[in-house]
Amino acid sequence: MQTPLIDDLISALKVLPGVGAKSAQRMAYHLLERDRKGALRLAETLNEAMEKVGHCRQCRTFSENEICPICASAKRVQDEICVVESPADIAVIEQSGIFRGTYFVLMGRLSPIDGIGPEDIGLPILELRLQQGGCSELIIATNPSVEGEATAHYLQQIAKNYDVKVSRLAQGIPLGGELEYLDSGTLTQAFLSRREV
Amino acid sequence: MQTPLIDDLISALKVLPGVGAKSAQRMAYHLLERDRKGALRLAETLNEAMEKVGHCRQCRTFSENEICPICASAKRVQDEICVVESPADIAVIEQSGIFRGTYFVLMGRLSPIDGIGPEDIGLPILELRLQQGGCSELIIATNPSVEGEATAHYLQQIAKNYDVKVSRLAQGIPLGGELEYLDSGTLTQAFLSRREV
Repeated sequence: MQTPLIDDLISALKVLPGVGAKSAQRMAYHLLERDRKGALRLAETLNEAMEKVGHCRQCRTFSENEICPICASAKRVQDEICVVESPADIAVIEQSGIFRGTYFVLMGRLSPIDGIGPEDIGLPILELRLQQGGCSELIIATNPSVEGEATAHYLQQIAKNYDVKVSRLAQGIPLGGELEYLDSGTLTQAFLSRREV
Repeated sequence: MQTPLIDDLISALKVLPGVGAKSAQRMAYHLLERDRKGALRLAETLNEAMEKVGHCRQCRTFSENEICPICASAKRVQDEICVVESPADIAVIEQSGIFRGTYFVLMGRLSPIDGIGPEDIGLPILELRLQQGGCSELIIATNPSVEGEATAHYLQQIAKNYDVKVSRLAQGIPLGGELEYLDSGTLTQAFLSRREV
């Protein structure tokens, strides 16, 4: 018994991940009641971003420029390439400040069941970069899921053809984690990768 | 280290209630990656809704028409008026199907501390409706919070001047609730309002 336009707004908001009917209604009312300016700014930014944001030609992350700020930066070590599944992974790695190289974003992972092959995750572009010799170390930072591991394995096979060091992010106990609540897979990795001190 | 446009999109998304930096980033990437069409439709609907949705002249709920569908409906009992704090309350009452009258939406509640007085919650409009004699029962459905109770009390005082029955939604144990986990305020109400069976 909403008016059609409010119904439309609620159903349009459900396009957002994690937003169901109830939250969408709450959002619609909130915007109408308290922040129409913010809603208009959101609409404008959505339009602009959807139109202008494409992918960096070199690393495939989202960017409105042909080359993203990280790839274009003279301060980054261009020949260390960290391979991640998504732009969100870049954000979290950048936050840690531990890595000063560049990235390559798969925008997904290998998944034959879903018909996602090497071309779909841009591996020809990455291989071209390896061929051109611009890479000294390939750091594989795909997620430790089944598909992520398969993708990592495939990347290792590719890298073998080139003179490039390949590494994979360490697996083990997360900081602040408690042994008591750790899954046995992680614990197994922590044992296998134990270091002498 | 996002590009400026993606940063803009993320910060614009934070206008939504319950959306912080992390969810906003997730939403932005999701839209860019998987649903640009949905994002454009959202932008369009936001624009249209913010521009066209105003308030029903009779009950003050959100509506793009001068009179909302409920107030305009011949099937509704026009002289039973249920007073609620927000349009979201109408949605949940309509879902239950228990009420066939019309509404009056305060769009807030009395709160002298925040400078919200009777005019701000539209009480002159409601009083005009009572004066015109178009109301047989006023059902007060404000929230059982301190401000909601104060507002309910104020509404009762107004209604006294007119020949109108006034009622308040019952307070007690919610369906499926367990005594063990009930707060003592609710339990007290449940005892005070107990019914002979």
